[in-house]
This record gives sequence, C-alpha cells and structure tokens, in this order.
Amino acid sequence: MKKAVCIISGGMDSALSSYIAKYKDGYEIIAVHFNYGQKTEDKELECYKYISKSLNAIKMIDLNLHFISDIGGSALTDKDIEIPKDGLKPGIPITYVPFRNGIFLSIAAAIAEKEQADAIYIGVVQEDSSGYPDCSENFITSLQKAIDDGTKPETKIKLKTPLVHLKKEEIVKEAKQMKVPLKNTWSCYERGDKACGVCDSCRLRLKGFKLANLKDEIEYNQA
Amino acid sequence: MKKAVCIISGGMDSALSSYIAKYKDGYEIIAVHFNYGQKTEDKELECYKYISKSLNAIKMIDLNLHFISDIGGSALTDKDIEIPKDGLKPGIPITYVPFRNGIFLSIAAAIAEKEQADAIYIGVVQEDSSGYPDCSENFITSLQKAIDDGTKPETKIKLKTPLVHLKKEEIVKEAKQMKVPLKNTWSCYERGDKACGVCDSCRLRLKGFKLANLKDEIEYNQA
Repeated sequence: MKKAVCIISGGMDSALSSYIAKYKDGYEIIAVHFNYGQKTEDKELECYKYISKSLNAIKMIDLNLHFISDIGGSALTDKDIEIPKDGLKPGIPITYVPFRNGIFLSIAAAIAEKEQADAIYIGVVQEDSSGYPDCSENFITSLQKAIDDGTKPETKIKLKTPLVHLKKEEIVKEAKQMKVPLKNTWSCYERGDKACGVCDSCRLRLKGFKLANLKDEIEYNQA
Repeated sequence: MKKAVCIISGGMDSALSSYIAKYKDGYEIIAVHFNYGQKTEDKELECYKYISKSLNAIKMIDLNLHFISDIGGSALTDKDIEIPKDGLKPGIPITYVPFRNGIFLSIAAAIAEKEQADAIYIGVVQEDSSGYPDCSENFITSLQKAIDDGTKPETKIKLKTPLVHLKKEEIVKEAKQMKVPLKNTWSCYERGDKACGVCDSCRLRLKGFKLANLKDEIEYNQA
C-alpha cells in the first residue's frame, strides 16, 4: 500500500488536502503536525487529532518545533505583535512566519524518507491567500528538486499540492462534498473560544463560505 | 556591517567554514547550533560555544531539534543502532540522518531572514566525506533556489560552502594556518571521554592530519 505524509495543521486547507490524498489518490496516511509555539497551538492540535482519526491514519506524528517561536518575527508566534484585524492588504503580512513551509517540508521529507513514503501532501494555496512566499508553486517546484538531490538516490518523494490553484470557495465546496469535518477545523489566528471572524485567515475562510453559498458551522465572535 | 549565519556543529569543518566567513570574507557572525538528540550532543555544544566565542559572534543561537531523534533512522541518534567502526565503505552509511542538512539549512534560512543576514555558511564536504546526499553541491544549488523562491522578495540569502570541494588534508592545513582552535573541536560519532579513532568521522579526520603531515592535538582511544 502506498503511503503519504500529510502535513495537517488543523485548518480547512490541510484537512481537504489530506482527504484528497486518502480518498481520491488512494494513499494510506501518515498524519504529521507541528507545534511551533503558535498562539493557537492547543486548538490546532485538537483539530489535527480529530482529522487524523477521521482519516484512519496509520501513524500520527506530532512534533515539538518551539524553536520557531524562539526565532520569532511573526504575529502568529510573538505575543508582543498584534494579529492584524483590519482586512487583507497588499504585500506580505506580519503573520508571515519566516520560511515556515521550508522547515515543515524539510522535516516532512525526513519523515517520508525514514518511513519510505511516496508522497508529501501540503495544503498550500497560492492566489486566494495571505500571499506568503512559501506557499507559491514556484517554491514547491524548487524544493522538490532540493529534496530529490538531498536524499538517498533510492528515495523518491513527490510533493503534492492539490489546492495550490484553488479559490477558497472551491475549497469549501470540495471539502463539503468530500465530507471533510469542517466543524472540527480551526483557521483563526487568535486563541479565543470562538473564531475572531476578522483576522486575515477568518476573512478568507468566511469569504469562501459566502461565495460557495454555504454556512460555516463553527462559531464566530464577529463576522 | 554584513552578517552571516554560521551553522557550527562543533566539528573541524564547520569551525573552519565559520573562520573563513569572519576572517576571509569579513562577515559578523551569528553562530547557530542544533541539539538534535545526537549521541555526542553535550560535547558538540561545548565545542560550539568555544568556537563561537573565539569568533566574537554577535549572536549565539542554539536550538532544540530533538524531533530529529524522534524521527530516528540513524546510528547518530538511535541508541539501538551501533556506530560502524570497521572503516568507510561504498554507499550511504547508517550514520546518515534523513535530510538533516535540508532541515538545518531551512532553519538557518528562517534565522537569516529574521536577522536580515546576507549569507549562510555550512561546512559541507562532498568528495572526501561519508557520502551523505545532503552534503553535495548539487543539493546546495537547488536549495539555494528554494530559499530564494520561498522567502520575501527583498530577502537575499547566499548559501556559502567554502569547503565543499576540499580534501580533508586541505581542511586541516587551512584550519591550522587560520588558527582555528582544532583542539576544541569534536568530530567523533561516539560519546567517549576521548575520540574513538575508528568511526568514519575519526578516520576521515585522522587521514586528513596524516596526509597534511600535522599532529592532531585531541586525544584518541585508538588510532
């Protein structure tokens, strides 16, 4: 049986990406999650666990990457930097975590090589997103080559990004159709009891539901 | 003043690489070290600190990457896998840590982006080495592109590998000439009071000193 390492943050995009790996592409799932000192760490971990179990993952690996918040430089990890709430703006926002997906994918490659997995799935979205440079298809293509060159000759790992060119409303529709447990995903950048509704991530999610003409079943403080 | 992130393991190669960054290429040094659950973690950390201080590093960052030993698959991190002692053989040895330099360099890139450094120095050696795939020039070239594509447009980080095509005897000679504190470096894969003298890393180091016609001042159990 072929195996895929799925990076599952606990959000909507990575949940759909891993459902595609399992139910469309036929992989057994090695579910990987990173605790990197983000403000919403406990919420994301809880959602990751729910999603991984719903996928009958053959292995669940959550790793401590608190060195990422030690490095700092992002509103997602630094308690002294406020999460912006006033809408998406041009340019790369302060929520960008320096080279996060470079780190995540390198670790996923190490796991895939060790576990002899055939693929890595990551839910990056290029256009309809916050504009992080490490979510671009360009970046994924060049990192694919680095992984090919930097692992054993017999190691063949394919990076898969099924959502990279989707719009948020397409992600919502597809996730609903595939019965992804969207109620058990967490997208908000803030750690509240309910999602804030006004950070960039909530705005993108809510826009997706609105344009898809579907109701988001999670609770919001304001929307 | 231009700044370079130097990955300093505590061994001979990364020590020379960081001396070149400082004294030949004129960078201020951000000294970075990774504790990844390797058997020689405490010894390497001690040597890293000594080398960094000798370089007057403007910043010293050592990070906990114990998730690497959690992933496993290498004799360097797994207590149940013996370090081979019977000489270098063709192929990739069991001391290979899956995609280690991919992980190390991705983290170094995040630090460099955050600290606005201009370069990253890593002491990889291609030919006269254990043959790890993540020490090849090919890999460094493709990872350079991934870092360019996956960081902010204004971020310009140059990967520097001054030792990649050197032989071990050239490294020893150059290090002696530059007054690298070789007595305070640790290359052995085993955690003994003295270096074992017979693991691949000790053999490569001793061969280098022998061919350079110089004496290694560290102590060995057998050589």
